[in-house]
Amino acid sequence: MVQEHLVIFQPSGSRGYIKEGDTLKEASRQLGVDIETICGEKATCGKCKVRIEEGFFERYGVDSRMEHLSPIEGREKKFFDKHEELAGHRLACVTRVYGDVLLFVPEESRAGKQVVRKSARDIPIEINPAVRKYYVELTPATLEDSLGDWERLQDELKARFQLSNLTIDYQVLLGMQEVIREGDWRLTVAVWMDREVIKIEPGLQEHSYGLAVDIGTTTVAGYLCELRTGELLATESMMNPQVSFGEDVMSRITYAITNEDGLDRMNSAIIEGLNSIARGITAQVDLTPGDICDVTIVGNTAMHHIFLNIYPEYLGKAPFPPALHASLDLKGRDLGLEVSAGAYVHVLPIEAGFVGADNVGVLIAEEPYNQDEMVLIIDIGTNGELVLGNREKLISSSCATGPAFEGAHMQYGMRAAPGAIEKIKIDAETKEVFFKIIGKEEWNTELEEVNAKGICGSGIIDAVANMFRAGVLQKNGRFSKDLDTARLRVDEEGPEFVIAWSNETSIGKDITISLADVRGVQLAKGAMYTGAKLMMRRLGTDKLDKVILAGAFGSYIDKESAMIMGLFPDCDLENIYAVGNAAGDGARMALLNREKRVEANQIAREVEYVELTVEEGFERDFAEAMYFPHMKDRFPHLKDLLPERVSRS
Amino acid sequence: MVQEHLVIFQPSGSRGYIKEGDTLKEASRQLGVDIETICGEKATCGKCKVRIEEGFFERYGVDSRMEHLSPIEGREKKFFDKHEELAGHRLACVTRVYGDVLLFVPEESRAGKQVVRKSARDIPIEINPAVRKYYVELTPATLEDSLGDWERLQDELKARFQLSNLTIDYQVLLGMQEVIREGDWRLTVAVWMDREVIKIEPGLQEHSYGLAVDIGTTTVAGYLCELRTGELLATESMMNPQVSFGEDVMSRITYAITNEDGLDRMNSAIIEGLNSIARGITAQVDLTPGDICDVTIVGNTAMHHIFLNIYPEYLGKAPFPPALHASLDLKGRDLGLEVSAGAYVHVLPIEAGFVGADNVGVLIAEEPYNQDEMVLIIDIGTNGELVLGNREKLISSSCATGPAFEGAHMQYGMRAAPGAIEKIKIDAETKEVFFKIIGKEEWNTELEEVNAKGICGSGIIDAVANMFRAGVLQKNGRFSKDLDTARLRVDEEGPEFVIAWSNETSIGKDITISLADVRGVQLAKGAMYTGAKLMMRRLGTDKLDKVILAGAFGSYIDKESAMIMGLFPDCDLENIYAVGNAAGDGARMALLNREKRVEANQIAREVEYVELTVEEGFERDFAEAMYFPHMKDRFPHLKDLLPERVSRS
Repeated sequence: MVQEHLVIFQPSGSRGYIKEGDTLKEASRQLGVDIETICGEKATCGKCKVRIEEGFFERYGVDSRMEHLSPIEGREKKFFDKHEELAGHRLACVTRVYGDVLLFVPEESRAGKQVVRKSARDIPIEINPAVRKYYVELTPATLEDSLGDWERLQDELKARFQLSNLTIDYQVLLGMQEVIREGDWRLTVAVWMDREVIKIEPGLQEHSYGLAVDIGTTTVAGYLCELRTGELLATESMMNPQVSFGEDVMSRITYAITNEDGLDRMNSAIIEGLNSIARGITAQVDLTPGDICDVTIVGNTAMHHIFLNIYPEYLGKAPFPPALHASLDLKGRDLGLEVSAGAYVHVLPIEAGFVGADNVGVLIAEEPYNQDEMVLIIDIGTNGELVLGNREKLISSSCATGPAFEGAHMQYGMRAAPGAIEKIKIDAETKEVFFKIIGKEEWNTELEEVNAKGICGSGIIDAVANMFRAGVLQKNGRFSKDLDTARLRVDEEGPEFVIAWSNETSIGKDITISLADVRGVQLAKGAMYTGAKLMMRRLGTDKLDKVILAGAFGSYIDKESAMIMGLFPDCDLENIYAVGNAAGDGARMALLNREKRVEANQIAREVEYVELTVEEGFERDFAEAMYFPHMKDRFPHLKDLLPERVSRS
Repeated sequence: MVQEHLVIFQPSGSRGYIKEGDTLKEASRQLGVDIETICGEKATCGKCKVRIEEGFFERYGVDSRMEHLSPIEGREKKFFDKHEELAGHRLACVTRVYGDVLLFVPEESRAGKQVVRKSARDIPIEINPAVRKYYVELTPATLEDSLGDWERLQDELKARFQLSNLTIDYQVLLGMQEVIREGDWRLTVAVWMDREVIKIEPGLQEHSYGLAVDIGTTTVAGYLCELRTGELLATESMMNPQVSFGEDVMSRITYAITNEDGLDRMNSAIIEGLNSIARGITAQVDLTPGDICDVTIVGNTAMHHIFLNIYPEYLGKAPFPPALHASLDLKGRDLGLEVSAGAYVHVLPIEAGFVGADNVGVLIAEEPYNQDEMVLIIDIGTNGELVLGNREKLISSSCATGPAFEGAHMQYGMRAAPGAIEKIKIDAETKEVFFKIIGKEEWNTELEEVNAKGICGSGIIDAVANMFRAGVLQKNGRFSKDLDTARLRVDEEGPEFVIAWSNETSIGKDITISLADVRGVQLAKGAMYTGAKLMMRRLGTDKLDKVILAGAFGSYIDKESAMIMGLFPDCDLENIYAVGNAAGDGARMALLNREKRVEANQIAREVEYVELTVEEGFERDFAEAMYFPHMKDRFPHLKDLLPERVSRS
């Protein structure tokens, strides 16, 4: 009878009896402990280091820890410095059990590592990428055994790594025989979804890289990650090159419909843009685009369709059905992307006509479907996208906020760029204005030269909210009369309020907020508020537990100003979070954890899209929501922030 | 409780109790009877016609057959002529059961049809293609239900046809929304392997087409089939355009190795060749290459690799491992084939370095693995391929026959073309020669003008076999001496035998067989014979039950001559069959029945390849096999065909 010995793995505490002579790696498999291995247990990668804690019966003197194991081998030693060796390190793949053993698996040897992302909540991402690398050594072909190279490789991958029914990418197949011989029958194989060999490299190649991309209407952001560790190696962003065909989604759809090669031109522009990001982001860490073995993509529905070269006509007219919702796995080369020849691109699913894969990215990053609280997620971009709900039910909608929050169509509006006024305070008594501009640390009053150029989105929200708070604006959006300040004045076009005097600007003119500007903000915020309110009515709730501001824009706006202005219904300010580019986070999560892709497809089908403009009472609700913060609704959490005359109402 | 009624289907005899109100189509499903349906049981295709035989209790008068069924509907009637209607025809998809029924399913309504191929045996092919078409009608999108088009289509395909987890080809997806609207939300969908939508057409499109191709070293043959009926619509063949890069396999491998763009050029040549076949073969029946939804390919290992653009270097040197054995499913567009945009190309598996997918095609057509008899399959081309065995075990090998059988390198050898001498008889007494040339029905003696140009492969085998039989040649291949005929003569180059006098030729010269020609034939036939013999020794058998001559060449040679010459060991002449282009048959079978593809992969891995040249005793065996028909082996079945002096030995 074969003897068995007790083996205990720390820190998990997994334990069990293991056959004498089995390796520690075999023991870990039997006991469900994940230990990293790249080389297929050939003691050539050194990734399966474990530390022997005790051999249980310490009667053999100093190094009794090793008495219950096979002796340390020379090929192991080269992976340890002297310190590690003395501390009792061994390679799990070659160390065999001959007695009871207690051992510790260090963090870096654990296959299922965790990486932590900073955001509203710390979300741990379990590392479980779609692409994994495996190192194999093949027995060279002989006249007696002239099995084909691919079958030889498959047999080895099955024996070593239990990978069966694999296919191989056609382009990879074409060069396979040369690579195998170049590495002298030793090679590293990248496998996608345990299904398909998508890359073959000679010798041992530990690292694999992936690129997550968020295609925004205005900005395209890329994230380069190491797929095995989850590490974020580099980021790179650029203006969406399609901007020259139209600033917003509707104008690009129109461009595609009205120009014969419009779709092709916009598609080529974004593909070339992504190739440029791939080149730049890999160059930052001395890699090339060919090193990218996996790609994930999020974007709103129009960006999604144009990226895929799907004619967006039907997105642009009622009833707005997209070509598809489900995620897609396509070869990068079929899309024209210059990544590794066999690499797939995973395009995340979209929810409905106006709620795209970017929103799905936000959802899998924020996981409202795993929470009890009633969460409102607002993604503010050229379009506003809203998701409301909790683990019981989620609904989504979108509203045309127009470009007001982005500073367009306002007399002194501008993009968030150096020189833009981004923060504004107004003294309630004197109506004096204090502001900060992008690129400067100090407030305007502390600067010798201010040189403001205009106001960006967050500045506009601050301006309107604080003009209201200081009594410059009334609840209904009209300017107050007879205020004792030169900043409020009336010219031919109507009343306006001076934010920066001409001597504080680089444009030689006063920077002002006009009545027309305020009206634009009212329309935009009214649309968002109405959307949120109608959705709350749908779900039968009158209270928000949490508000999540997604989108890069959401990170810059002042949450107090946003609520004072009435961008969304009342909520405890402490439970309002800006999560930055959560869509990009979602893309990154789907890159690092394939389960997130499954989750995304499920949630994309489960979220119910509601078309708000056809909702009963929309017109009246919208009219009421034009007020600051609202005509009738109460804002208990603003009680201490607004003067009594306002918060009382 | 719901009532049930007895329903009996003829001719299968399947019977069972069926819920009242179920349709006959539902009943067929429950009882495992295959009834054709394209439209998804919407009474729009008329394919599910059945004939009602009796309503069991014939007490209701003339048309009692219909008493147990729902009344005939107007939409049914349009599919029947008066005769059919009187004969009791109904559509199974709308006719509901209200009493016991006996019905007959006509041949044309059966989903699993059989088509019969003429060959050595009649092989029935069950029609079960990889690509099937489905007709669906979608509910158009509305504001209340703006589900994406692809999901809408998927839901319908699942509800109607139980097709789940479908994917869609990327190129097909791009045009999907337009096609759906073009057909006013009615469309026909082609699905590959129940997995992927590979084509979408507006409205109802009944037919789908596939192309089976055999890429021979010399000849490329295509077969266009209707995939639902199995009907062979057209054939087309051409010389392999790679011939200009080298006549045989080795010379093409060499061309690829010694010319930098050699592989690309040969690859482009064959792809363009296949495109030309696709154009020609579809034009014959008023179709276009875009109508081709599925393609199967067979070819020897070198043709296989070059077609796939895989560098054939390792095929050409020991130990000759191919890049892969397994079948491949690739998009036609990725190979440059001008077929339907989403169509797959199924490349059949190969066995070993020299035994290719063409041989696998022969195997799945001939199925020796389902037979008890010991079968030798000889595929004679530029290379000779051999398979020996039965259901117990199959082994394969290949031997370099050289081009002797194709007429190359012989003084008067030529391809099988008009003017070639293809059949030869020699009078044993007078040594007079009688021959037939390609393009003429009569023997030479019956023609006024003969105009022979040379001798093709089958003529060469006839010539050598009959020269031996008539005593012109001795057993060892030497010319006999002192024969009383002017046909046997000696010039500076040695002895030769006149087959056609110059007045019978169009070349102004006598057409002769020289000693060198005979030696070439001896080498080629010796190689084949030795291969077969060594393989028989491997399997421990000394008797062949059946010999199958595959390859177009095998169809033309005289089996008596082949055995007299000793191309293979003794076998009953009645059990020697020429099966024509069995490789092409195999490709066609794999096109029409996807199970044959599974079978091919299994058999390709099971057949054991033996390398004969390293076999013990090969040299001696080869030397003995150079004799006619063999130095020592006995040929009981030639007893009555050879003069006693020979058959006795």
